Amino acid sequence: MGFYELAFHAPGTSYVRTYYRRPIGMLPGKVPPEILQRIVFSKLGRSDPDVILGPEIGEDAAVIKVGDQVVIAATDPITGSLEDVGWLAVHVNANDIATFGVSPRWFLASVMLPPGYTPDQLGKIMNQIDSAAKELDIAVTGGHSEITESVSQPIVVGFMMGIAPTGRYVTSSGAKPGDALIVTKTIGIEGTSILATEGASYLSNGVGKDIVEQGQNLKNSISVVKDGVTAFQTGFIHAMHDPTEGGLANGVHEICDASGVGCELENDLIPIHEATRKICEYLQISPLELISSGSMLISCESRYASKVIDELNAVGIDSAIIGLVTADATYRKVRLDGMLQNLPRPSTDALWAALKKISLS
Amino acid sequence: MGFYELAFHAPGTSYVRTYYRRPIGMLPGKVPPEILQRIVFSKLGRSDPDVILGPEIGEDAAVIKVGDQVVIAATDPITGSLEDVGWLAVHVNANDIATFGVSPRWFLASVMLPPGYTPDQLGKIMNQIDSAAKELDIAVTGGHSEITESVSQPIVVGFMMGIAPTGRYVTSSGAKPGDALIVTKTIGIEGTSILATEGASYLSNGVGKDIVEQGQNLKNSISVVKDGVTAFQTGFIHAMHDPTEGGLANGVHEICDASGVGCELENDLIPIHEATRKICEYLQISPLELISSGSMLISCESRYASKVIDELNAVGIDSAIIGLVTADATYRKVRLDGMLQNLPRPSTDALWAALKKISLS
Repeated sequence: MGFYELAFHAPGTSYVRTYYRRPIGMLPGKVPPEILQRIVFSKLGRSDPDVILGPEIGEDAAVIKVGDQVVIAATDPITGSLEDVGWLAVHVNANDIATFGVSPRWFLASVMLPPGYTPDQLGKIMNQIDSAAKELDIAVTGGHSEITESVSQPIVVGFMMGIAPTGRYVTSSGAKPGDALIVTKTIGIEGTSILATEGASYLSNGVGKDIVEQGQNLKNSISVVKDGVTAFQTGFIHAMHDPTEGGLANGVHEICDASGVGCELENDLIPIHEATRKICEYLQISPLELISSGSMLISCESRYASKVIDELNAVGIDSAIIGLVTADATYRKVRLDGMLQNLPRPSTDALWAALKKISLS
Repeated sequence: MGFYELAFHAPGTSYVRTYYRRPIGMLPGKVPPEILQRIVFSKLGRSDPDVILGPEIGEDAAVIKVGDQVVIAATDPITGSLEDVGWLAVHVNANDIATFGVSPRWFLASVMLPPGYTPDQLGKIMNQIDSAAKELDIAVTGGHSEITESVSQPIVVGFMMGIAPTGRYVTSSGAKPGDALIVTKTIGIEGTSILATEGASYLSNGVGKDIVEQGQNLKNSISVVKDGVTAFQTGFIHAMHDPTEGGLANGVHEICDASGVGCELENDLIPIHEATRKICEYLQISPLELISSGSMLISCESRYASKVIDELNAVGIDSAIIGLVTADATYRKVRLDGMLQNLPRPSTDALWAALKKISLS
């Protein structure tokens, strides 16, 4: 780490006092947006006219022009799962491509294992990648695997690509005032399944075994590929986004930031699974701020919202209108018990506090 | 880890003896080819006719059809560098694309840092990515950065893409009997620079400060992008490969394996930098088995070999013919002191033994 030296000089005197201050280290989780904006997004190598969409807050992948098509490309690592690291690496990266309304097609992975891991353990991870890829009709086209002392548990970094004809996709920046905001399935799916798995015995005492089991099973709903591709094909979608860290609340802020719009949500309309509601209540966290892979956030022309919901329903996906997009980008509200309140902007995911509660129990 | 249970039943008796055997854990480095072949390459999700080149031993990237062009895509992590992790992530992945004779164009990165790392430290890594990308005319198009307890030092996993018109690239599988084998610059560049940096004080006593400094400076020759693109543009290239782990010896085996051919090398023709030679002698390792990013291995039509060498020379890159490709795939020889010997096939890179010697000193 190292320490910064700060010298204060009292003006008009020769008095100098030197302080040593520890630089502010970053906490586990995604690097905060303001740091990304300042440090990362200004460091982008050469500028290239074929890069249609580069790194942006709230965008899930890059869009690159190749002939008369575009390649959509995303990368995400799985660093915190012992059981499902290979399976999650495929789904999480596939979700990023699906937010463009595009089917994920080609997957590469860098697999890193601590020394002493066996070929069988590698085989288990590869089986997960294989089966998740087959579920989603994705080809695994390459990768790298190595044993390294720099990791303390298996990490899989995924890289996913899809293609679309030029212009035949949406981003998170296309939401328009007057649009309906739709979410698919229920919110907090990913967070609920993590909490129900990690805190199984603790939560069983609080909410019952049935609820815990339902929470664990939500894992199987983590893909939004069908959600995104089906919604896009209706032709009525202006923007989509995959709410991950910071939950639905943060996801709505991100789509509003990217589109330069505001929003008004109805808390009572937000679909929450019984297991999510009970587990969040018991752990005293907000389901709106819980990591939310599994639910797609969609901004679509209001008058066609019911058509979009019908089409999703026809492929077995529940969805609901949760509010409207407004013109004023500073207006971000949610109606709760009849009162309009500011939509919370979580600085960190509710998952971390909840996991801490579980581990201390 | 866990232990396997093996029960032996003596036939014709009721005697059963149970053994517990620790499964064989894997050592640091790339996962060995026989394990890859058995465990990884059979797990490839759906099969897709647009995947022209999928995972293969000795191939450096995937080739995917997009319209009338192909996308070349590669991933490699940097797990063992404290000083140059961002810089190396760009160069190592760029080299993979250049072995196809194609310019790397678009880079994505997943950056993982241990808790407590500061924005300034992230900034340093991003500066390295930015400057390496600018050197090579590459656009950084996206990525992910997070703080995680699962890594003990910064890891950057790079993803690189390039494009070419269909058919306008080479792989490592195109070498033909009678071809000349050319290497650019000198072999063992990457390994020499790592050893000269990690073992600076130990080696200074053995080979002198000047040689150590020259060895460290070889780092700046690690890119083979200009080598690969320039050679390909001559139109006389049948195959290229970027010899990394296991050095030139392993790289030649890999290009022969991929192409189904053999080889006959002349040891005296293999270009070795003075610093590489002296450091390898002092550490008693073979420069032919030392990790070798920085040198491109090229298989080209013999009668045009001097033309390829001239074209490389014209852009400031030294190169040399080191041997010939033969038809018999089991014939892999190197002439040393007038005697034909089997080309060694290192089971692990010479770097690891050398680093151990340094750390024990």
